[in-house]
Amino acid sequence: MISKNQLKLLRALGQKKQRKAHGLFLVEGEKNVLELVDTSLVVKQVFATDDFLQKHASELSQYDCIEASLEELTKASSLVSNNAAVAIVEIPNVQAPSAEGMIIALDGVSDPGNLGTIIRIADWYGIKHIVASSDCADPYNPKTIRATMGSFGRVQVTLLDLPRYLNEASIPVYGAFLEGESVHSTDFSEQGILLMGSESHGVRPEAEQYVTDKITIPSFGGAESLNVAMATGIIMDNYRRQHS
Amino acid sequence: MISKNQLKLLRALGQKKQRKAHGLFLVEGEKNVLELVDTSLVVKQVFATDDFLQKHASELSQYDCIEASLEELTKASSLVSNNAAVAIVEIPNVQAPSAEGMIIALDGVSDPGNLGTIIRIADWYGIKHIVASSDCADPYNPKTIRATMGSFGRVQVTLLDLPRYLNEASIPVYGAFLEGESVHSTDFSEQGILLMGSESHGVRPEAEQYVTDKITIPSFGGAESLNVAMATGIIMDNYRRQHS
Repeated sequence: MISKNQLKLLRALGQKKQRKAHGLFLVEGEKNVLELVDTSLVVKQVFATDDFLQKHASELSQYDCIEASLEELTKASSLVSNNAAVAIVEIPNVQAPSAEGMIIALDGVSDPGNLGTIIRIADWYGIKHIVASSDCADPYNPKTIRATMGSFGRVQVTLLDLPRYLNEASIPVYGAFLEGESVHSTDFSEQGILLMGSESHGVRPEAEQYVTDKITIPSFGGAESLNVAMATGIIMDNYRRQHS
Repeated sequence: MISKNQLKLLRALGQKKQRKAHGLFLVEGEKNVLELVDTSLVVKQVFATDDFLQKHASELSQYDCIEASLEELTKASSLVSNNAAVAIVEIPNVQAPSAEGMIIALDGVSDPGNLGTIIRIADWYGIKHIVASSDCADPYNPKTIRATMGSFGRVQVTLLDLPRYLNEASIPVYGAFLEGESVHSTDFSEQGILLMGSESHGVRPEAEQYVTDKITIPSFGGAESLNVAMATGIIMDNYRRQHS
């Protein structure tokens, strides 16, 4: 059973301010909770149905598990759908990454669903680091975590002063624009930064000044733009074609 | 002002059954409504704010326009967000396409947001035709239309008996699977069918039997799968690299 205080904490962690104050975030959904086992993240508590706890007793034995009904869990969840499991996890200390393969940099990507999808596609292509301007969506927002489909534990996201980070990086910065060199003919260096802007504002001038290579996804029809997560996936596929 | 009967119709068209009965669908949002001008779709009525009607008077002069407040339009809309414009449009008669470049075929893609995103990516890559199994999302669902971001008028979607269509097609059928030939080394024919399954069930056996080439997007990390729209975009980019 979820106590009154536990319920209060679970609900509080739906808000960014509270996540920051407690240094904790929520991992919701069966698949995501099970993914925790393979990460170095510190799990404080797991709330889950009896069914789920029994089915995964061995994986979950290392955690402090609390049994709860599906109704309780749904009530505690920040998300609409039913939830057989929710974990409270410590927000890890992350450092801005130094050069290691391709790093994805996000400028003003404020939608948590987009950020989560980008974390998932980064994980697909084996990208370990995302850096993001401080006005990007919170990587620990429950909507972000949900959209990663379990990839949150394998990709590190660091919110930082993006222009400063780009200024100090001494590797190529590939910026995605509607006009630039086609990614079909771009010669990607193995180490670099792929800079993606938001759908509505693109890469902003403060970050654009550090772009060394403007690149674009060639268009063959009438659509004006692509979703930022989609564009990131397509560009990463073009990069991986050259560096696997 | 929107009359009581008009409001009733607008609301009814949020439901598939009612769209079918009336032969009509809704196009919501300023950008989508303006896209109608460049299509051959038959527009019955446009409901929009005074602001919108004045700003786009010349484009909209051919239509029966009805002024309404933002409150009225939001009330009439099937979607949550504010809406400065909504159009009632005739569902066109569409025929199953014969071979013309690459055709995208969808098997059991039931989420309207995914279908809309696939329509948008098809339009980006200049693909004119999508065929979809009859249990796919309705191409005229307001959520589908919204997710196309204006591309609904340039891509034709036909719901049909998919196994039968694939059986009768005499062009290569490229099926996307988690195991298959890497799209980085696939030699795509110019004319063909790209068959995509749903995220949860993949391509089902009834359709799989007609696949001539199993292809896959190479993975380099830990993510187990990709969203179907994302995968479609990445494969189309690989196709267009060979056939532009």
